[in-house]
Amino acid sequence: MDFDEFREFGHASIEFIINYLSGIRERDVLPSVAPYSVINQLPKEIPEKPEHWREVLKDLEHIILPGLTHWQSPYFNAFFPSSSSAGSIVGELLIAGIGVLGFSWICSPACTELEVVVMDWLAKFLKLPEHFQHASDGPGGGVIQGSASEAVLVAVLAAREQAVLSCKETHPELSESEVRGKLIAYSSDQSNSCIEKAGVLAAMPIKLLAADEDLILRGDTLRKAIEEDVAAGLIPVICIATLGTTGTCAYDDIESLADVCQALKVWLHVDAAYAGGGFALEECAELRRGLDRVDSLNFNLHKFMLVNFDCSAMWLRDANKVVDSFNVDRIYLKHKHEGQSQIPDFRHWQIPLGRRFRALKVWITFRTLGAEGLRNHVRKHIALAQQFESFVRNDSRFEMVAPQALGLVCFRPRGDNENTTQLLQRLMERKKIYMVKAEHAGRQFLRFAVCGMDAKPSDIEFAWTEIESQLTAHLAEKSLAEVARKPSNVSDLTQHFQMHLANGGGGTHEKSQ
Amino acid sequence: MDFDEFREFGHASIEFIINYLSGIRERDVLPSVAPYSVINQLPKEIPEKPEHWREVLKDLEHIILPGLTHWQSPYFNAFFPSSSSAGSIVGELLIAGIGVLGFSWICSPACTELEVVVMDWLAKFLKLPEHFQHASDGPGGGVIQGSASEAVLVAVLAAREQAVLSCKETHPELSESEVRGKLIAYSSDQSNSCIEKAGVLAAMPIKLLAADEDLILRGDTLRKAIEEDVAAGLIPVICIATLGTTGTCAYDDIESLADVCQALKVWLHVDAAYAGGGFALEECAELRRGLDRVDSLNFNLHKFMLVNFDCSAMWLRDANKVVDSFNVDRIYLKHKHEGQSQIPDFRHWQIPLGRRFRALKVWITFRTLGAEGLRNHVRKHIALAQQFESFVRNDSRFEMVAPQALGLVCFRPRGDNENTTQLLQRLMERKKIYMVKAEHAGRQFLRFAVCGMDAKPSDIEFAWTEIESQLTAHLAEKSLAEVARKPSNVSDLTQHFQMHLANGGGGTHEKSQ
Repeated sequence: MDFDEFREFGHASIEFIINYLSGIRERDVLPSVAPYSVINQLPKEIPEKPEHWREVLKDLEHIILPGLTHWQSPYFNAFFPSSSSAGSIVGELLIAGIGVLGFSWICSPACTELEVVVMDWLAKFLKLPEHFQHASDGPGGGVIQGSASEAVLVAVLAAREQAVLSCKETHPELSESEVRGKLIAYSSDQSNSCIEKAGVLAAMPIKLLAADEDLILRGDTLRKAIEEDVAAGLIPVICIATLGTTGTCAYDDIESLADVCQALKVWLHVDAAYAGGGFALEECAELRRGLDRVDSLNFNLHKFMLVNFDCSAMWLRDANKVVDSFNVDRIYLKHKHEGQSQIPDFRHWQIPLGRRFRALKVWITFRTLGAEGLRNHVRKHIALAQQFESFVRNDSRFEMVAPQALGLVCFRPRGDNENTTQLLQRLMERKKIYMVKAEHAGRQFLRFAVCGMDAKPSDIEFAWTEIESQLTAHLAEKSLAEVARKPSNVSDLTQHFQMHLANGGGGTHEKSQ
Repeated sequence: MDFDEFREFGHASIEFIINYLSGIRERDVLPSVAPYSVINQLPKEIPEKPEHWREVLKDLEHIILPGLTHWQSPYFNAFFPSSSSAGSIVGELLIAGIGVLGFSWICSPACTELEVVVMDWLAKFLKLPEHFQHASDGPGGGVIQGSASEAVLVAVLAAREQAVLSCKETHPELSESEVRGKLIAYSSDQSNSCIEKAGVLAAMPIKLLAADEDLILRGDTLRKAIEEDVAAGLIPVICIATLGTTGTCAYDDIESLADVCQALKVWLHVDAAYAGGGFALEECAELRRGLDRVDSLNFNLHKFMLVNFDCSAMWLRDANKVVDSFNVDRIYLKHKHEGQSQIPDFRHWQIPLGRRFRALKVWITFRTLGAEGLRNHVRKHIALAQQFESFVRNDSRFEMVAPQALGLVCFRPRGDNENTTQLLQRLMERKKIYMVKAEHAGRQFLRFAVCGMDAKPSDIEFAWTEIESQLTAHLAEKSLAEVARKPSNVSDLTQHFQMHLANGGGGTHEKSQ
């Protein structure tokens, strides 16, 4: 493809994206495809001869798009947002077009230096403790990881290696494998699956401690677990706390956890993948309590900062603890400035060797939106969640499961889990909005997460209408089924229909005050 | 930013990239920047108000580009290529614009299914054993990882967990930590640093066995090491062989390694990050020998398939061995088709949970280039390396260090390492071409890797002229310095200058036949 064709294809693709994003509300958020339906529409081999890009865009429109779940739609309310923005999309284009890698400074100095700059920008914007900035005197700093999973794994692995080193000194009588066999880590049973997975990958058990009734992990629980384990001869390594759990966006109590971790010399990592966006707001200042005493934390920029996936910010209080754990090197990777300045060779801060120029999309997004735009985006999500919460609270057929937190509302239809399951199944079959369910203490519930590049109050109304009308339909069907099961006489049947209508089967229903 | 601005910014960025790439030969491949020079040109905080995208592009041009090492330049001859293509660049744009994640099938069915399709396309194109295709009956298949490092780590971790499981059965008298403490893995001392790092991350020592004189690891060496370790009570887990080592593009002897691994039940992984591109060519068919007996392999599409970083293809003979090792799950990740079809939930095949729609750029690149275009690209790199080799062989001041292999030529100026070091330093200071050095058996040498989106014979000539003229200059300076060190009488000095001129100090030099 020559540059003229590249130009045409590129410009046509910009238009393609604008068409897609501007018309995204017109599509069902969930696709109407069965497994293999995309596979079966595509040829079995690479075409021998080049095809024109127009053919590719045509198939993208007619085969791929109908098979997608539309994450940028405001009707996507599952998981957490994976937001994007015009600046970030164009940023990815420029990253690919420039095509540099940044595993060491000399590899592309601006790639490393821009990352230092934007990570410090972000640390200030989020009002993180100063020692997390590269510009601070100490060994702290930030790095862009690919995902929260990788950030957590980096913390877990570095903490593990540091613990092994220190135990070899304090317990010279133990062999290295004896030490490794005694290592133990902690998190809450509300933490993301990537934390349990990090334990599997690190070959270090992570105990998922039962969170309190309000789904928060506190220092007392951690202290008790550690004391028991130490008494049993184990070596506590790290606690991974969460600010914004995936289930309910609960905030672990960082201050009391930090008390325990500091006293017992345990690494404290905070997974703030979602809730980190709140750090930027004065009205969420309490979220930052205790962060001055954590060893590392991560925050996904694609969740709240409108930088598209993948982009997970991670800060370390002492980056040397990671670098010293991971540094293996070869002559062809050395360069003359290595180790002579405070500028990091980021390959030592992460799992892989190669790394993309992700700082570029962060820089472009931040500049084109401004700090003001970023804060407004988080505030908008909070306001939309509050709007949704008010719908839930005003409908007596529903109940809240946890307090609304940032852009997440956890709720359920009253009654047994079957109502929740059935309601979700109906919604999934209709494909108008997409939510997922979660469970706590045997109660299943629905998570409504404000998502999309550009969600509006009318989108929240749309979602709510869809939800409550489907509950109405479900309850009507359930009533009918119950009647059908015991149609002992006609008066029973009549009575049932009357109850059903009174309860909203006809489209109206009792509202709570 | 509204859609009108997005359109303008997008179109301007397409033009920006075309300008950059079409003029890339006019830039020094290495930047003239000292550490901190980019950092010092940028503000210390996110701007409060949004800035216009024109300001951002201006700074990209004037601050960022001058700080980059230009990986897409044909004068970039360091490491291995990280190629790109128009299709792939636009592919990244579309991936970002569509903005879906693909950690499970329901997350975006087309994202998963297109990956199944392109991985099977690639397996056929590379003539890999059929059992690596998703379409085959067995449990094999391919997945896109972010980098070779991650692919290797996935293999190492899965092999580790499988070994622990099987040892617990065969040695019920051992505790899990005793088993883990006995695990041992193998690779060659020529393997990439990411393999040693995988061992560190996995907390499992990887012995870097001395390759033979020709830098190839063979079965005999592996068998001897394993037998010694088994005798010492250790448990061999995995051997990571390399096709195309980073130092010299040597090919480990997969057939003899497979003999040993099969006999001793050791996982065999092949890191073909670079040389995998050769699998596609009939004239490189011998590269594929033994692949029918390996458990897993990886190949970087950004190295030879013109798909930009990050895109590392990995195939597994039995994907269940990875899935079973890594599967931790939560209710919110389940979906109704889960486990009911052969379509994978790729989150279980990799380290992180989140994953980009990378299959899209692969699909677009393959279709717009065709199988023909992909093969031609590999063949062109081989031909250009042969051209470079002929320059080396025709200049008696240089010697080859290893046979030319694919797009890599390893060579050095004759004499002590100081010549190599000094020559490289001169080249780095002039910034016209970028190579890195490597070392084997105490001999330092230079690696000339054919890179860039669109390298031509004239680029190879340019590089060679730069190299040989700088050697000329270095030797002249060295002669002068030697004379200056012992200027015992004038006749010595005269004699030296005459020798120097005869040896090419005046711009000509003796050519070998």
